Amino acid sequence: MWAGERGGPGSPHGFQLLLRCKTATLPSQSLGQALSQQWRDGTGRGERVKKGILERLNSGEVVIGDGSFVFTLEKRGYVKAGLWTPEAAVEYPEAVRQLHMEYLRAGSNVMQTFTFFAGKDNLESKWKDVNEAACDLAREVAEKGDALVAGGISQTSLYQSQKNKLEIKEIFQQQLEVFTRKNVDFLIAEYFEYCEEAVWAVEVLKESGKPVAATMCIGPEGDMHNLTPGECAVRLVKAGASIVGVNCRFGPEISLATVKLMKEGLEASGLKAYLMVQTLGFHTPDCGKGGFVDLPQYPFGLEPRLATRWDIQKYAREAYNLGVRYIGGCCGFEPYHIRAIAEELAPERGFLPDASEKHGSWGSGLSMHTKPWIRARAQKEYWKNLLPASGRPYFPSLSKPDA
Amino acid sequence: MWAGERGGPGSPHGFQLLLRCKTATLPSQSLGQALSQQWRDGTGRGERVKKGILERLNSGEVVIGDGSFVFTLEKRGYVKAGLWTPEAAVEYPEAVRQLHMEYLRAGSNVMQTFTFFAGKDNLESKWKDVNEAACDLAREVAEKGDALVAGGISQTSLYQSQKNKLEIKEIFQQQLEVFTRKNVDFLIAEYFEYCEEAVWAVEVLKESGKPVAATMCIGPEGDMHNLTPGECAVRLVKAGASIVGVNCRFGPEISLATVKLMKEGLEASGLKAYLMVQTLGFHTPDCGKGGFVDLPQYPFGLEPRLATRWDIQKYAREAYNLGVRYIGGCCGFEPYHIRAIAEELAPERGFLPDASEKHGSWGSGLSMHTKPWIRARAQKEYWKNLLPASGRPYFPSLSKPDA
Amino acid sequence: MWAGERGGPGSPHGFQLLLRCKTATLPSQSLGQALSQQWRDGTGRGERVKKGILERLNSGEVVIGDGSFVFTLEKRGYVKAGLWTPEAAVEYPEAVRQLHMEYLRAGSNVMQTFTFFAGKDNLESKWKDVNEAACDLAREVAEKGDALVAGGISQTSLYQSQKNKLEIKEIFQQQLEVFTRKNVDFLIAEYFEYCEEAVWAVEVLKESGKPVAATMCIGPEGDMHNLTPGECAVRLVKAGASIVGVNCRFGPEISLATVKLMKEGLEASGLKAYLMVQTLGFHTPDCGKGGFVDLPQYPFGLEPRLATRWDIQKYAREAYNLGVRYIGGCCGFEPYHIRAIAEELAPERGFLPDASEKHGSWGSGLSMHTKPWIRARAQKEYWKNLLPASGRPYFPSLSKPDA
Amino acid sequence: MWAGERGGPGSPHGFQLLLRCKTATLPSQSLGQALSQQWRDGTGRGERVKKGILERLNSGEVVIGDGSFVFTLEKRGYVKAGLWTPEAAVEYPEAVRQLHMEYLRAGSNVMQTFTFFAGKDNLESKWKDVNEAACDLAREVAEKGDALVAGGISQTSLYQSQKNKLEIKEIFQQQLEVFTRKNVDFLIAEYFEYCEEAVWAVEVLKESGKPVAATMCIGPEGDMHNLTPGECAVRLVKAGASIVGVNCRFGPEISLATVKLMKEGLEASGLKAYLMVQTLGFHTPDCGKGGFVDLPQYPFGLEPRLATRWDIQKYAREAYNLGVRYIGGCCGFEPYHIRAIAEELAPERGFLPDASEKHGSWGSGLSMHTKPWIRARAQKEYWKNLLPASGRPYFPSLSKPDA
Repeated sequence: MWAGERGGPGSPHGFQLLLRCKTATLPSQSLGQALSQQWRDGTGRGERVKKGILERLNSGEVVIGDGSFVFTLEKRGYVKAGLWTPEAAVEYPEAVRQLHMEYLRAGSNVMQTFTFFAGKDNLESKWKDVNEAACDLAREVAEKGDALVAGGISQTSLYQSQKNKLEIKEIFQQQLEVFTRKNVDFLIAEYFEYCEEAVWAVEVLKESGKPVAATMCIGPEGDMHNLTPGECAVRLVKAGASIVGVNCRFGPEISLATVKLMKEGLEASGLKAYLMVQTLGFHTPDCGKGGFVDLPQYPFGLEPRLATRWDIQKYAREAYNLGVRYIGGCCGFEPYHIRAIAEELAPERGFLPDASEKHGSWGSGLSMHTKPWIRARAQKEYWKNLLPASGRPYFPSLSKPDA
Repeated sequence: MWAGERGGPGSPHGFQLLLRCKTATLPSQSLGQALSQQWRDGTGRGERVKKGILERLNSGEVVIGDGSFVFTLEKRGYVKAGLWTPEAAVEYPEAVRQLHMEYLRAGSNVMQTFTFFAGKDNLESKWKDVNEAACDLAREVAEKGDALVAGGISQTSLYQSQKNKLEIKEIFQQQLEVFTRKNVDFLIAEYFEYCEEAVWAVEVLKESGKPVAATMCIGPEGDMHNLTPGECAVRLVKAGASIVGVNCRFGPEISLATVKLMKEGLEASGLKAYLMVQTLGFHTPDCGKGGFVDLPQYPFGLEPRLATRWDIQKYAREAYNLGVRYIGGCCGFEPYHIRAIAEELAPERGFLPDASEKHGSWGSGLSMHTKPWIRARAQKEYWKNLLPASGRPYFPSLSKPDA
Repeated sequence: MWAGERGGPGSPHGFQLLLRCKTATLPSQSLGQALSQQWRDGTGRGERVKKGILERLNSGEVVIGDGSFVFTLEKRGYVKAGLWTPEAAVEYPEAVRQLHMEYLRAGSNVMQTFTFFAGKDNLESKWKDVNEAACDLAREVAEKGDALVAGGISQTSLYQSQKNKLEIKEIFQQQLEVFTRKNVDFLIAEYFEYCEEAVWAVEVLKESGKPVAATMCIGPEGDMHNLTPGECAVRLVKAGASIVGVNCRFGPEISLATVKLMKEGLEASGLKAYLMVQTLGFHTPDCGKGGFVDLPQYPFGLEPRLATRWDIQKYAREAYNLGVRYIGGCCGFEPYHIRAIAEELAPERGFLPDASEKHGSWGSGLSMHTKPWIRARAQKEYWKNLLPASGRPYFPSLSKPDA
Repeated sequence: MWAGERGGPGSPHGFQLLLRCKTATLPSQSLGQALSQQWRDGTGRGERVKKGILERLNSGEVVIGDGSFVFTLEKRGYVKAGLWTPEAAVEYPEAVRQLHMEYLRAGSNVMQTFTFFAGKDNLESKWKDVNEAACDLAREVAEKGDALVAGGISQTSLYQSQKNKLEIKEIFQQQLEVFTRKNVDFLIAEYFEYCEEAVWAVEVLKESGKPVAATMCIGPEGDMHNLTPGECAVRLVKAGASIVGVNCRFGPEISLATVKLMKEGLEASGLKAYLMVQTLGFHTPDCGKGGFVDLPQYPFGLEPRLATRWDIQKYAREAYNLGVRYIGGCCGFEPYHIRAIAEELAPERGFLPDASEKHGSWGSGLSMHTKPWIRARAQKEYWKNLLPASGRPYFPSLSKPDA
């Protein structure tokens, strides 16, 4: 669905499917596995050709992105907070591979190369090895299921201080050279707080001839030069992006509000593009313009803000209703959050992800519990209406951003 | 240190080391790696013989346990909530191995076999394969570092309904037979809510001649038959446990309060044993006697209660001061929480864990951040005094348990 | 009802009355006024003789105390926080008279003389005038309705520092001399944190031959010498108090918990006395032994803790069910809180207070509102289940006491 | 100060005075009393002539309004919630007089007649008596100090349903006839949610030749016809209002934000008028356009939102800095809140209110407390930085409005 079209809350067909799924023909252990099994077989024998990102979106499919890498691997012991650089692709490939596998299993259709902040500006001489290793890992896992590989670049450390267009573009070109050589399926320019730098990135990536997605790390107040989200979207599409949206820095509700402004900006200018959202896995109602990095708890005290799976099902539904068809997550977004997207949209998509084999929808796995008050939680209404107490009565619910 | 002795907040030597560590001779990238490197080399060549669990405790060492398996693997897509059984040891060994690796890297000295709820009563015909595979995985990873393998059994599904002592003991004996054959280093009976069943477990495990640890999933109000924690500890030690304490069902503060009561019970009866604590990674100030399973948010809405790394450093210090020398975690306790224990007690232990290679202590990794207000967070006082806002102003901070 | 007897949750008769009241024969504008009208007439003509405090309690009546004076008059501008002394009885008699009137109208059966901290130790030469004026004001208002006058003394400023029994008793005797001369109906020794000093007070008051009530400002942890509430109650009754309980320093739930311990102490020792509770109008779940004065917000930031009328209806019902028959309030307890007691217990008492003329029970006054969503609030279930949001997302819900 | 001028945070002179006040020449017991003493004497002898409202504002004085009547008297037992009508002026004049006295004593320069919702539409045949009695009470108390009498009218119950201009204006004219006969000093049209009806009110009041103030009960989103606050202000001033602003329905921060928009609207249109703000005494960060009446806790569960005196000092300072010179309160605003305005602005005004006789500024009255941790609270920094915990861990901090 194009941004210019109306994203309704599920067609009658959609609802019909929902009923069918939940009552009869879509048990989690069967269809989900069956579908992905095809890919496993197919990969081995090379018979199937995957549809590209734009083919999928053109045909109305929902594409599920992946979740957090740097934040999740930090908690697993393989990334250092502060720098947030992905040397682990070289140093600890098994840890990176495992995380890719978890996202694939949870329903991701895109394996983003683990190349966040992986330009020469941040990684110096290591940049090339890291980008290459990341491409290989993404491809290796993508081949095990119905996922594409996306080469990802992000904002440089040079823009704010120098704004040297040539130097910055060269960093992007270097990474693109690896992505091209490794033959990724499409490209993502992500985590840009300045539209101008994102436009430069799109311009570089566009040279490859592959589809380009571009997501900014901004909120409804716009970019750091005070361009509105709508204007940012327009400029990115004009520069050549086929998919635009936001990733990171804001929680589900705010991220969707920003994408809505982008959608309206595109509509107002008569441009068409697919919409994409990869929200934080954290709730950030108290953010200022700079997003969660300015919250006093960033990055080592964000735990109480972590989204539940039910929060994410709500997010997936609202994103879908807004017309967004590329839905994923960013920092704090764990594999079970990706699974929550896939489960929420299973009626529309017609299948469940592999990982639903280990998940009763809406808590149904509790239905056999010995304690009756826990059995009583095995239902949608229960979890949908849950008030997740923080367990922290001595702490506030909101905080003032530092900037 | 025996429970009967006084656990001080660090010897003068300890403080001296602390100063040395933080300022000069213990950079995270060197000593930590250096020490564990010995084990990697050693393992390869079979030269070193590891000290047993009691040798370690006898000599005053702090033993760091591991963290959550069923909860963490549920979020990664490999365990089903409700049943919480460990078939993944057979089905997805790479996921289980990876988690073991993360704990080892974070500083764990014990690889517990992934055999929670893995008796015949829960797993039926699969029980044997699962127990065997779990032993092999634990051993494989333990050999990569300075960790022991502990075979673990937990309460059965039979006790509450039937209390058939013979049948229950047979389940334990079956698992013990595998552990003995696979030659685990010691044994843990964990997650018992009835002291009587835990005593039966200890009696069975004791037959092996290996050291036995026993932890109950109770709070300060005692077991489900209203035995006090002190009385439970006494009975477990009399049954043959060398190490006693609690795991699961309560957060850090309450778990430590329970262990304190156990310690006092042992002291009052003149018994000696080592103390052990493996807390939840969740804050549960609002729990009743039944612990977190009775909180309305269990198990799918506990996110806001998740402990920060700083919460866990506090927990590690308080456990140490209480005289506890086997310190780990249970549900919700992730690899970075284990690392937090290892970092907090690095002065006493003399080294940092491998994973500290990717962690600046007390946020020091932020010291190079471009934003000055984020750089200002690169210090201990900042994180120690942090108030982690929940980001959930529409939700309460506490909830009433269902039972 | 004696403390030794069982306080049930309302007799069948009570419930019958409740139904009758709410549907037909007890409209707020009629019975309540009718009943108190008798007193107005009666007082004027001197025909009726009021029943004494013990007669009332002996016959099973619920006696409703009054509410806050020093806190409420501080907010009205007539008392100084810190000292909390009642010079206003002399300086601003119209303000004191008005507050007495509001409590009478709200349903109070007792006008306590405004003589808190009014001994010579605090007021020096002014003490006599203040005590006399306070007696006159209380009597003047009491004569306008069905209320008795209680002369009140409270702990001295000498006990903690000097413990001079003779000097302290002399202060009490001086006040008692005024009370006797002014012919108050009974006496209350209140706000004692040391049982010993309260016993001295009871011994002095007992000399008058009038009934004596004694309330301490302690919580479940007991007095400042670590006497349990049960032991305090026993000593007070043995010293001559006919009515015992608590006032001040703790909110409704904790105050009732303390009175319950007093009741159990009396039962265990075979003593009989009437129970009395005059709680704070503030919620204090986070108090330590010293009560609300140790909370960091005392006394100028307690607003968010203020009880709603519904909280107080719950308190009144629970007090009644516990067997307490003298129910009132202390600091923070405003006239509408007293009315809430009278309304909650109207079925048992058979009438509503005058002030219910201006109050639709359980929000029924909203039933004519133009906005339908506000009309929907005109029902008991709504207010009973209300979650009163604090409107303060940047503040915690609990705080750590300073001591 | 005109809205068009810049309101600075206190002139150098102001700061000089502040120093003088706090250290030497402005003890609360002297200057405040001395100044108002003049009025007491003067009133008796009729020597002094008070300055009118516009004279005061023209000369740069801060005029302090009064606080809540219907809400406060509801809690005292004299007004019925839901209707919120002021029959008490006739029925219980001593209660109304006492509240006027408290506001006068707290520093109010305006006694508003207690005529809220007192048109014929709400009070039927009683309207005349109520309006007359209210004028007499206001005048009686105003004569005791430096206060003017303002006749007040508010929105009718007819506008929304009928919009009959003539009928509505007739209601206003009837009240105005009483105000004129009773010779009030100026007039206030307040609590209008539709600008059009407020304009009608101003038009009627303007006929009297007396100064007219007009305040709406709107927030930053504007009136119920979606006129912006700026546009509302412009229309009211064009209709003849000399003073414009807001009263009611929103807490301090939001009320000031609305007045700021009004100020900007006036500036943009080149109009001049004095600004006025009479905020709720409740915090309402979670309000929608309709204000606090739409919050689920309205009107019987707003207690946790009640402002502290320190909140109000902040409000007074911010209002002053914004250029507002008529500062008061509305529902929930108690006498001690008015005193807080007068104390905060004492440096600018040169004197303290009478009620400061019973109030140590910034908690100084605690300086003699026996407990050292309470003595430590006797300072400005303490209360300014206070986090007033709600004491309600089971309740949320914000709630969703019903509409």
